[in-house]
Amino acid sequence: MSDKNYTQVLIDGNIYTLGGAEDQEYMQKVASYINEKISGLKAQPGFTRQNKDYQEVMIYLNLADDYFKAVQEARRLKDKNEDLEKEVYSLKHELIGVQMKLDAAREESK
Amino acid sequence: MSDKNYTQVLIDGNIYTLGGAEDQEYMQKVASYINEKISGLKAQPGFTRQNKDYQEVMIYLNLADDYFKAVQEARRLKDKNEDLEKEVYSLKHELIGVQMKLDAAREESK
Repeated sequence: MSDKNYTQVLIDGNIYTLGGAEDQEYMQKVASYINEKISGLKAQPGFTRQNKDYQEVMIYLNLADDYFKAVQEARRLKDKNEDLEKEVYSLKHELIGVQMKLDAAREESK
Repeated sequence: MSDKNYTQVLIDGNIYTLGGAEDQEYMQKVASYINEKISGLKAQPGFTRQNKDYQEVMIYLNLADDYFKAVQEARRLKDKNEDLEKEVYSLKHELIGVQMKLDAAREESK
């Protein structure tokens, strides 16, 4: 973490200077995603009339919900990967078996 | 979204009543994850001395960073899945080929 980059990002109308190991492009992508989430919530009727704490918590919940959905998707893909790996293993095993039978049949017919 | 559940969650020391389609268990899991993130940041030296806006934005950035990392992991697994699917397809193809050769060799030696 010694390679600290400093990036200015605009989040919810304010400029923040962020130091971190992540590159500028990534930080801008993250900032832009956060701004979209905030705008989406602010566009909901009544949202901006709620108190500030409630608004913040709604933003946290929305971001966290996206995170859990992405984790769930990663878990689903991981399970599917494991199934596919088993299928590859079993097909390779079957292939060796048939190949051996073929070699034997060819040997016999010599 | 007609089945609205109402759940009380404790986030950053305040109780919020949330209405949504998600079940109570999920909402508690999300709230607990958010609280862990907030506590982690508050434990960092100097964090609570920053102004409120900065603190909030740091929480947003931390949540969004987790989201992007999970998305990246899901993407990696998706690519791996595609490779495995191709391998399964190619192995099945190869298996049919060898099986046909075996059938032909057996036919010949009759």
